[in-house]
Amino acid sequence: MSLRYLSARLAQQIDDELMSAAGAFSLDQLMELAGLACAQTLAKVYSSDKYNRVLVCCGPGNQGGDGLVAARHLSMFGYKPTIYMPKLGSKDIYQRLHTQCKNMSIPTLSEGEESLRTTLKSSDVILDAIFGFSFKGPIRPPFDSALPMLSESGLPIVSVDIPSGWDVEAGNEAGVGLTPDVLVSLTAPKEGVRMFRGQHFLGGRFVPRTLEEKFQLNLPVYPGYEQIVDITEATQKL
Amino acid sequence: MSLRYLSARLAQQIDDELMSAAGAFSLDQLMELAGLACAQTLAKVYSSDKYNRVLVCCGPGNQGGDGLVAARHLSMFGYKPTIYMPKLGSKDIYQRLHTQCKNMSIPTLSEGEESLRTTLKSSDVILDAIFGFSFKGPIRPPFDSALPMLSESGLPIVSVDIPSGWDVEAGNEAGVGLTPDVLVSLTAPKEGVRMFRGQHFLGGRFVPRTLEEKFQLNLPVYPGYEQIVDITEATQKL
Repeated sequence: MSLRYLSARLAQQIDDELMSAAGAFSLDQLMELAGLACAQTLAKVYSSDKYNRVLVCCGPGNQGGDGLVAARHLSMFGYKPTIYMPKLGSKDIYQRLHTQCKNMSIPTLSEGEESLRTTLKSSDVILDAIFGFSFKGPIRPPFDSALPMLSESGLPIVSVDIPSGWDVEAGNEAGVGLTPDVLVSLTAPKEGVRMFRGQHFLGGRFVPRTLEEKFQLNLPVYPGYEQIVDITEATQKL
Repeated sequence: MSLRYLSARLAQQIDDELMSAAGAFSLDQLMELAGLACAQTLAKVYSSDKYNRVLVCCGPGNQGGDGLVAARHLSMFGYKPTIYMPKLGSKDIYQRLHTQCKNMSIPTLSEGEESLRTTLKSSDVILDAIFGFSFKGPIRPPFDSALPMLSESGLPIVSVDIPSGWDVEAGNEAGVGLTPDVLVSLTAPKEGVRMFRGQHFLGGRFVPRTLEEKFQLNLPVYPGYEQIVDITEATQKL
């Protein structure tokens, strides 16, 4: 039984069920575990002694919230994260997560392309938490100019759930998305990343068995008490 | 610089600061990370193949909430937890955490000594999340009879933050507390566990550096991206 790839609709439905009255999860809980998994994935592949300076790129949605949580954990792990978040989401939780980062002395870039350009020159790796599975093109400003800058930096990129600019189902057909080296899928991989050929992890170890069976996710076995599992081989059988 | 042991007042003050408007953490977030650390500590010491059946004992306060989170994660790790929680706390969060456990098909014991006695006979290890740092004796029913039953079971015990029945500052002077094999302190160890001589872990890797310095906690370095660190040696220098 192979891993199931999720459509945007199915991914949304699973999130909705987890956070329904019956599922009983709060967004705070799920975002904390998701963001922790993202930070651990980056730390697993890029050691803090060689890749200390992490540019954490956050969009205005839940994906950006995962990024803020990840930035905080990366700081606890000994990295020096910097946040690029040109549009702070309006939900109360983003404000709180951002305050938590500020309390950890994690800087946030000032607006404008110049500060992004300068910071890219003094970064070692990028965590891409800009667009999530509810993204629909075209890419709007300021991200339409930011994405090419991230690509052209030549820095290694770790993308969260779906590489920014990719359609959650059609993938990078339009060719305007990032090309990450590492991907951390959350809950289950999305349709659009079938053709992803980098190192692939899964996080979001919080799906009850009943939900897994209902949606036939066929999730892999996580090792021990880990919050992430390497699914590179499982997803790239030739 | 050695680890600081916290008084009840200081432990409360740190929790309050973390969850103040300035600290910006929600109880959901901190409890999720604390409970995950508890589950990981148990999993680190007691492997799921030999110690599969975990009796998770929860009190009516925040400590019990940590226990419910831990039960859920233990289930994800492949353990078969059973919850003993004779008094469910009234806060909304406990109800939600308990629902999450029920959704994972984790059973909760029915009331009465008999079900506890029977279940102890078919358990491999106990997670003690009954009383936390705000506990003040004497031990009230039904815990006054439950604690001796847990002790007499002879099962290995992992205690959360402060072994149940111990005074957070005076320790087990009264001699009515549990004698755990493993302790997982949260945020920083409490005064009362200075004389604890089992395997000692620290969890709660979320204290900002500024807060750590303000309270001179002198926290140890956690390994890599781990959420727990073994502080047995650091706390038991002869």
